[in-house]
Amino acid sequence: MSATAAQAHPNIALIKYWGKQDKPGNLPATPNLSITLAELTTRTRVSSAGRDELWLNGNRKEDPKVNGFLAALRKKFAVEPLKIESENNFPTGAGLASSASGFAALITAINEHAQLGLNRELMSEWARRGSASAARSLFSGYVALVPPMWRAHQLAPASHMPLNVVVAITNRQTKSVSSTQGMEYSRLTSPYYSAWLRGGPDDFAAASSAINQRDFEALAQISELSCLKMHSLMLTSNPTLSYWNPATVACMDAVRDLRNQGCAVFFTIDAGPQLKAVCLPEATSQVAATLKNIVGDEQVIVCGMGDAAGLIEP
Amino acid sequence: MSATAAQAHPNIALIKYWGKQDKPGNLPATPNLSITLAELTTRTRVSSAGRDELWLNGNRKEDPKVNGFLAALRKKFAVEPLKIESENNFPTGAGLASSASGFAALITAINEHAQLGLNRELMSEWARRGSASAARSLFSGYVALVPPMWRAHQLAPASHMPLNVVVAITNRQTKSVSSTQGMEYSRLTSPYYSAWLRGGPDDFAAASSAINQRDFEALAQISELSCLKMHSLMLTSNPTLSYWNPATVACMDAVRDLRNQGCAVFFTIDAGPQLKAVCLPEATSQVAATLKNIVGDEQVIVCGMGDAAGLIEP
Repeated sequence: MSATAAQAHPNIALIKYWGKQDKPGNLPATPNLSITLAELTTRTRVSSAGRDELWLNGNRKEDPKVNGFLAALRKKFAVEPLKIESENNFPTGAGLASSASGFAALITAINEHAQLGLNRELMSEWARRGSASAARSLFSGYVALVPPMWRAHQLAPASHMPLNVVVAITNRQTKSVSSTQGMEYSRLTSPYYSAWLRGGPDDFAAASSAINQRDFEALAQISELSCLKMHSLMLTSNPTLSYWNPATVACMDAVRDLRNQGCAVFFTIDAGPQLKAVCLPEATSQVAATLKNIVGDEQVIVCGMGDAAGLIEP
Repeated sequence: MSATAAQAHPNIALIKYWGKQDKPGNLPATPNLSITLAELTTRTRVSSAGRDELWLNGNRKEDPKVNGFLAALRKKFAVEPLKIESENNFPTGAGLASSASGFAALITAINEHAQLGLNRELMSEWARRGSASAARSLFSGYVALVPPMWRAHQLAPASHMPLNVVVAITNRQTKSVSSTQGMEYSRLTSPYYSAWLRGGPDDFAAASSAINQRDFEALAQISELSCLKMHSLMLTSNPTLSYWNPATVACMDAVRDLRNQGCAVFFTIDAGPQLKAVCLPEATSQVAATLKNIVGDEQVIVCGMGDAAGLIEP
């Protein structure tokens, strides 16, 4: 049996997406912007099989999102039953965007395996149907996901303003509420949700402009605000979505202290307890040392900005 | 020289006040509701003197708020220069409402010493000019501070539904941003401030109704929401106001776990890192033991509901 393999990296949103539009297509409610990471990698191998089978990190899995994704794809294309084997070299389902890299790698592999003939923009659109943030992992550098088409595109290559991301893993457990479910709670119950929607376009514009001008400090300000606005939505949802643990808060305070001392760093946190410190390359060693002091050496991963999703040897 | 003394207790807001009206009188922007504590106590002694002198916990202090308070009072009443000696049996300026008990004790002592003849409602109004939450410490039990008069009144006595408050002190340092300054930052910069204002009356009504019906679970829900909405305002202000430390978050998680196990407890947190676990009396020992495990035995104070401000032996 022939097999095809692809890899993709998670991306870290600087302008967050939290909440979907109330219509089909898995469309974010607000424009969002990310950087694609290196080091953290999902590798996915697809091969023809008697029936669909998903293996995640060596374990047989049933995943309703993957099933739905394949069903939608087959409404449009002839795709035979597939054995899908996917491996993450980082914790899965713990706020490290494993679904982003997962669906980006999956559509990249299937596109080749089943000869769908999709260009990168259309692959991004398909990846979005699996997991909205996955649309961004089709691209490298600074990546935007905006209306009306909601296909990601590159705003600027990594070389425009290279950044490093120092990930502090504070807890490797899978989160108890999925992002999909959590977003629905926030949309339906947070008293701050409509203000969040109204502010999204301005936050996106401010971040785009900061990137355009290579203004790290401005990017830091708007990115931390976007992160804290999102976590405020989460905290004020019913049920409350509380993703921070004591180490997360200790890392936030440490990053604030570094920044107050003039270090070019800011934090961002997704729907999980891990903290990502985004910094200029020259600040990386100081940031990594500081976070290692809090969470331990082996819980800190230093990432550069990574490549777009692409094919690899199966 | 004759001396007069009064004592008052801090109060813990269940429906929070964060942000003032943009007009004179130190008026909260939203209705708020508290319970008055026992155990934590401010004792204030006033005596006639050659000129105003403030002693706080044995140290000579200049406090612009106290100076402004005395100046306002003297526009209306003949009050001679005063030596004011005030003692707190708990950390000052660390999110334990020392200014609430402080101004409540102060107006109670001055009212007697200078024979101002104010009734309790008018003392509440004067205390509010010093510190808005101080208006509530004139009363015992469940206390409301609402428009249009913005004088506190008792909603229900403590005996209606007795509660205990288990205070976990996570940090005894004075906070770096005062509440007055912080509220201004939030009013001027938080994207969620207008939603906060809009939601205030409904939150107050929900809490009043829960108290009226002795519905602890409903009171728990709306009180935690009000707390988390306020901290979301703080986090999304510029500069960001981040009052939680790792131990605060550990205590929040512990209270959530207890509540999920059926224990009648909820948390609230003011503009500081201390956590207050509010519980039915039968839950007190379990709550206190749990929080002592996190912050240490000597950092936990168990309070009942306390008396109104009143005169004591000088």
